Amino acid sequence: MSVSSISPTAPAGTSSDVLVIGGGVIGLVTAWRAAGRGLSVAVADPRPGGGAARVAAGMLAAITELHHGEEPLLDLTLASAARYPEFAAELEAAAGSGTGFRACGTLAVALDADDRAELRVSHALHQRCGLHTEWLTGRECRRLEPMLAPSVRGGLRVDGDHQVDPRRLTDALLTACERAGVVFHRQWVRELTVSRDRATGAVLADGTALGAARTVLAAGSHSGELAGLPPGIAPPVRPVMGEVLRLAMPEPPDGAGPFLSRTVRAVVRGSAVYLVPRADGELVVGATSREQGWDTTVTAGGVYRLLRDAHELVPGITELPLRECRAGLRPGSPDNAPLLGPSALPGLQLATGHYRNGVLLAPLTGEILAESLVTGELPAFARPFSPLRFPSVVPV
Amino acid sequence: MSVSSISPTAPAGTSSDVLVIGGGVIGLVTAWRAAGRGLSVAVADPRPGGGAARVAAGMLAAITELHHGEEPLLDLTLASAARYPEFAAELEAAAGSGTGFRACGTLAVALDADDRAELRVSHALHQRCGLHTEWLTGRECRRLEPMLAPSVRGGLRVDGDHQVDPRRLTDALLTACERAGVVFHRQWVRELTVSRDRATGAVLADGTALGAARTVLAAGSHSGELAGLPPGIAPPVRPVMGEVLRLAMPEPPDGAGPFLSRTVRAVVRGSAVYLVPRADGELVVGATSREQGWDTTVTAGGVYRLLRDAHELVPGITELPLRECRAGLRPGSPDNAPLLGPSALPGLQLATGHYRNGVLLAPLTGEILAESLVTGELPAFARPFSPLRFPSVVPV
Repeated sequence: MSVSSISPTAPAGTSSDVLVIGGGVIGLVTAWRAAGRGLSVAVADPRPGGGAARVAAGMLAAITELHHGEEPLLDLTLASAARYPEFAAELEAAAGSGTGFRACGTLAVALDADDRAELRVSHALHQRCGLHTEWLTGRECRRLEPMLAPSVRGGLRVDGDHQVDPRRLTDALLTACERAGVVFHRQWVRELTVSRDRATGAVLADGTALGAARTVLAAGSHSGELAGLPPGIAPPVRPVMGEVLRLAMPEPPDGAGPFLSRTVRAVVRGSAVYLVPRADGELVVGATSREQGWDTTVTAGGVYRLLRDAHELVPGITELPLRECRAGLRPGSPDNAPLLGPSALPGLQLATGHYRNGVLLAPLTGEILAESLVTGELPAFARPFSPLRFPSVVPV
Repeated sequence: MSVSSISPTAPAGTSSDVLVIGGGVIGLVTAWRAAGRGLSVAVADPRPGGGAARVAAGMLAAITELHHGEEPLLDLTLASAARYPEFAAELEAAAGSGTGFRACGTLAVALDADDRAELRVSHALHQRCGLHTEWLTGRECRRLEPMLAPSVRGGLRVDGDHQVDPRRLTDALLTACERAGVVFHRQWVRELTVSRDRATGAVLADGTALGAARTVLAAGSHSGELAGLPPGIAPPVRPVMGEVLRLAMPEPPDGAGPFLSRTVRAVVRGSAVYLVPRADGELVVGATSREQGWDTTVTAGGVYRLLRDAHELVPGITELPLRECRAGLRPGSPDNAPLLGPSALPGLQLATGHYRNGVLLAPLTGEILAESLVTGELPAFARPFSPLRFPSVVPV
C-alpha cells in the first residue's frame, strides 16, 4: 500500500480516501459501497464483522417496528426493505456466500384483550400510512402457524416484513469488502486525528497513524466515545442493551409443515417478543431492552422473560434446544433514527444511531454514505437524517 | 512404567494392580484412595475430571435428599457427609488446592399450603430417622435469608446439609491422583478384556491393552454400555439427565449480608429447585430431571422451568448474570443406591449408580472401594450396596 499525501499532517502510516471506524454491519456496508464507487477504503476494528448485528435477530420489520411518532423514519425503512432482495442477491454474488435473506413475512399476534386493542391501533396506523396489513382472527392465525398457543386471540398478517441472518450478512459483507480491496486494520482506534479543524484520519492502538480524506464514524453505540472528537461533535448515541436467545427447531416429520414458517411476534405484558425462524433451523427469540451502559451481561431475568413470553406465544418451544443466550448493544439516538452523512467537523461523516434498525437499514445506509462520501452531500431523501439535525452536544 | 505379569493374557501394553475405567469424581476418588493403600493404579478416561460432577451443584444433602423408601441409603449418605470436613482437608493438603467445601447448612422452604404439608411430612420422616431439622415460620425463614420471597410460608432449617464445589473437588482429586502416582490414559476404553471368566483389564481406543489384577467400572451412566461385559454382568444403570444453571451473585455492599448464605431449596409445583451459593460468588441453580437417554442438550423448557421456580423462591435472581446452562447425566440405579465392590465377574468391581449422590458419597466410596480392592471384600456396612443385590441382567 502506498502512502498518499491526502493527509499531510498524519505521521508515517497508511492513507486512503476513506477510513471507516467500526467494522459492524453499518461500517462494512459503507466500506463495500464506497469501494464500489472507486474509493480506496480502510476499516479499523479489532474484530470486523462483530458488533450488534452478531446478536440481532435480523427482522426486516419496517412495518411491525413502526412506532407512533417515528413516521419520518418510515420512508427510510420501507425504502431499505424494498432494496433487500436485490441487495442480498448482489452481496451474495460478490461474496460467494449466503445472507439468509428470506421473504417469509411476519405475523403479529395478540394474547389478550389489551394486546388486541393495541394491535388494532397498529393496524389503523398502518392503514393511515398506506401499508398493507391484514387483520386475522385467532383461528386464522393458528391456521397459518399451527404451533401458536390456543390463547392467541387475533393478529396482523404482515407479508412485507421479512428476515435476514445478520451473522451470515456480516460475514458476506466482510468477504465482499476484502474482495473489493478494502484494507482491514484489526485494532481498536485510539483516537480521531484532527488538523486545522478537519478530521484527517485516526491513530490505532499500536500508534499507527491512518490518514484519510474522509473518515466515517460507524462505531455503533460507542460512536460518541471516540477520543479526539472535538467538543460538540460527539454524536448523541447511547447503548440500549438487548438479550437474544438462539434455539434449534427440529426437522419437520415427513409431510408436516415447519415448526414456524414466518416471524411471529407479540407484545406480552408490555414487552415485545419475537420468534424468527431461519431456513437452517435456527429459531431466534428476542429481545429485551435495557439502558444500563455498555454492560452486555446476560441476566437470569432477561432470559427468563424471553422464555416465558415466547412460551406463552408458542408453547412447543419448551422441547427445543437452547443454543445460545447473548446480549448486544443497539446504538440509540434521541429520535430513534440514524445519523447519516457529514458532521459539523469537515472530513468526518457519521453512520451510526441506527437503534433497532441497523440490519434493515444496511442496504440504504451503504448507498447513502457512498453518495455522500463521493459528493460530500447527502442525497435529498436522506437529509432528514443528517447529524446536523441535533444541536451540538458538548461531551461530558 | 514396567509391564508387570499380573495379567498374563493381556497383549503387550501396560499393567497395574488396579485399572479404573472412568475418571469422574467416583473413578478419581477410587483411584486416589487405592493408590493411598499402596496399589499401583491406572485410570482410563478421555477427559479425566469430567463427567456428571462437572455439572452437579455439589449439595451434600444427606438429609434434604432423603426420600421415602430410600432409608437404607441414609446410613451411607450420613456417614459420607460426616467424613466430608476431614476428607476435604486431606484432599486439599494432598492437591494443594481448594474443594469449596462449605459448612453452610440448608433451608428447605414451602411456597404454598401443599408444599408446607409435604415439608411437614419430611420433617416427620427426619424425626423418625433421628435427624435434627427445625421447623421455621415464613418470617423466621426470611430472617435467615432476607432475599426469600414474601410468599415463603415456612421451612425446615437443616444445619447438617452442606456443600462442596464439584469442579474444584474433581480438579483436586485429579491433582492428588497424579501426585500419588496414578497413571492416566486419556482415551476411551474400547472394551473390557475377559480371560477364563475373569476380567483382566481393558483395551483402549487406540488398541493399547491395559492389564490389571482388578478392574473398577466407574463410568457413571455409561457403565452398563461397556463392550466386553459378559452377559448378566452389565450393571443396571441408566442416565437421568439434569440441567443446571450457574449465575453470579454480586459482592454484598459494605455492612450488608451475602445474597444467600446457605443452600435454599423447595419443591415448586412438584419439581425440586435449589440455589447453592458458593463463597466465590457463584450461585448454582438446579436441577431438572429427565430420562431420555444420553442426550445432554439443554432445552428452552428446562432453563425456563429452573429460572421460573428459582425466581419464585428468590425474586432477586433476575438481576444476576446467567453464566452457564449445562446438562449432565446422573447414573440412576433401580433402587437409587450405588453399586459398590465385587461384581459377579471375578476381577471386576463396580463403583457406579450413585444417582443424585455421587459428590456426597465420594469420600465413603473411595474408602469402600480401596478396602474391597485390597481385601476382595466389601466392609460389612457397605454390603447392602453390593452389585450382587440385583439379579443378573442380560443386556439387550
